[in-house]
Amino acid sequence: MRGRVSLVGAGPGDPGLLTRRAVSRLRHADLVLYDALVPAAVLKIASRARRFYVGKRAGRHSITQDGINRLMIRAARRGDRVVRLKCGDPFVFGRGGEEAIALRAAGIDVDVVPGVTSAFAAPALAGIPVTHRGHAAGVVVVSGHAEDAFRPLLEGLHPGSATIVVLMGVATRAALAGCLLDRGWAPDTATALVFGASHEGASRWAGRLDELADAPAGDGTAPGTIVIGSVVTLAAMVGSAITARTEGIPTEPAARRVRREAGGRRSAPVPARG
Amino acid sequence: MRGRVSLVGAGPGDPGLLTRRAVSRLRHADLVLYDALVPAAVLKIASRARRFYVGKRAGRHSITQDGINRLMIRAARRGDRVVRLKCGDPFVFGRGGEEAIALRAAGIDVDVVPGVTSAFAAPALAGIPVTHRGHAAGVVVVSGHAEDAFRPLLEGLHPGSATIVVLMGVATRAALAGCLLDRGWAPDTATALVFGASHEGASRWAGRLDELADAPAGDGTAPGTIVIGSVVTLAAMVGSAITARTEGIPTEPAARRVRREAGGRRSAPVPARG
Repeated sequence: MRGRVSLVGAGPGDPGLLTRRAVSRLRHADLVLYDALVPAAVLKIASRARRFYVGKRAGRHSITQDGINRLMIRAARRGDRVVRLKCGDPFVFGRGGEEAIALRAAGIDVDVVPGVTSAFAAPALAGIPVTHRGHAAGVVVVSGHAEDAFRPLLEGLHPGSATIVVLMGVATRAALAGCLLDRGWAPDTATALVFGASHEGASRWAGRLDELADAPAGDGTAPGTIVIGSVVTLAAMVGSAITARTEGIPTEPAARRVRREAGGRRSAPVPARG
Repeated sequence: MRGRVSLVGAGPGDPGLLTRRAVSRLRHADLVLYDALVPAAVLKIASRARRFYVGKRAGRHSITQDGINRLMIRAARRGDRVVRLKCGDPFVFGRGGEEAIALRAAGIDVDVVPGVTSAFAAPALAGIPVTHRGHAAGVVVVSGHAEDAFRPLLEGLHPGSATIVVLMGVATRAALAGCLLDRGWAPDTATALVFGASHEGASRWAGRLDELADAPAGDGTAPGTIVIGSVVTLAAMVGSAITARTEGIPTEPAARRVRREAGGRRSAPVPARG
C-alpha cells in the first residue's frame, strides 16, 4: 500500500468545526503530527494512529521544520497514511505550502484538506462579520508575529478601507496599532481582541484602536485574534456565541472608562512593549 | 419547541468540506433556504427538510432579502429549525451579518456555523497557498462585484505587499487588473483564475496580471476566484488537486504564447469590458 501525507486543517478548535474529510483522514491515519492548540477531542478521533506533538510555542521548537518533513517522508515511504494536522487552514500562516513542496519534491503523494480558518471564524464567533455592506467590502488577514511582516502591507492601506484581522498579533499589538494610527486610521476605529474562539473559556475585549496597546494580553495559552474596523460595532446586534464567557475581561476597558469619565482622550498610542 | 435559525457555511462545494456541525444542522433541519451554487449532494443531507432556493444569480433575484428574512422569522416563530445555507462562510460576502441582525431584532435565536471559505480553499485546491514565507505575509480578500467596492482597498495596497484574492470578480477582471497596474503592480505579477474549485469540472487559468483581462471568463455557471501574487508560482511545486481538469483552458494563454514567441510584450492592460 502506498503511503501519503494529508495536510489537514483542524479549524479553530471546536471539533464540530472539523470538516468531514478531516474526520475521515484522522480516522484512517497511521500517524498524526499535530501543532499546538489542537484540542484533545480532535486528536481522539485518530484512535488508531500514533500521535506526535510537533508544535512550536513562543519560540520553543520541539522539532525543526526539516525534522518534521523528514518524519513525514519516512513514514509515507513506509506506507503510512500520515496526517499533518494544523490549526485553522493549512495554507493560512500554517507553513503548509513549505511542507507540501518538500513532500512533493521527495515524491510523496500529498493531499490538502482546507479547514475553517480562525481568521474568519474567531470574529464570527464573537459576533463580527468580517465583511458587511456599508462597513467593509474587503478584509485583510495578516500575521502579527513580526513587525517587518505586517508593516509593508498595513502601511499601504487607506484608513478604513477594509477590515483587518491579525493572527498571532497579541505580543505586537502596540506596534500594529501604532502603524495604523501613523497611517491615519482614526483613533476611535472599533477594535476587538478574541481569545480562544471556539475553545473552552473563550473571551473577548472590545475597544478603540488607540486602546489596543493597553488591551489584555490573555494568559498566553489561548490564541488571540485582533479585528480592526467598524464591523466590530456590529457584534452587539449580531450577537456572539462567546458573549457569556467574558468574565475577567471588561468589554469597555478600565483605561477608556476612566478617560471617558474624565472627558479626556489619548492622542497617541503608547510605545510598543513587545 | 423553540425555533431557531442557523446561518451555515456550506464551504466551497465539495460535501467533504462541510463541517460536522453543518451536517448536523442540515440533518435536523425542518426548512433549508439555500443559495446558488450549493450542490445537490449537500442539500440531500437535509432529507427531512423543506428546501427552497433563494439565491440570486447575475442580477436575477428570485426573492428579495426582506422576503428571505420574513420567511426565516415566520418559520422560526412556528418552531421550525431553519438552516440558512450559504456558500463558503456566511460572514464572508454572504450577507450573513445582515440576516443575523434582522433575526435577532425579531427576537429569533440565531447560531452561526462558520464554513470553509472559498477565498482560501479555491487557491488551496489549485495548489496555491495564500501565505508563504518569502512570498506573502498577508492576504487581502475583496469582492469584485462592483468597482466602487474594491477600488478604495486595492488602490492603497503597496505593489506586491500581499496576496490578493478576488471573489465574484470574473466580470470586472479587466478593471481589477487595471486598478493594480495603475497603482504600480508589476505587469508580470503571477495571476490565477480558478473556476468551480471543489465542484465537478473545476478548471484553472494561470498567467500574468496584464493578461487577466484576456483570461477566460468561464461559462458563467462555476464561481471564479482570482488570485494575484507570487504565491501563484508555487502551484507547480505544491501540486494541485485540479491540475487534471484544465482541459479547454490553457495554462499559458494563447495571447501570451504568441507575444512571447514574437518577442513582444503588452505594456498596458486592455480597458475594462464589464
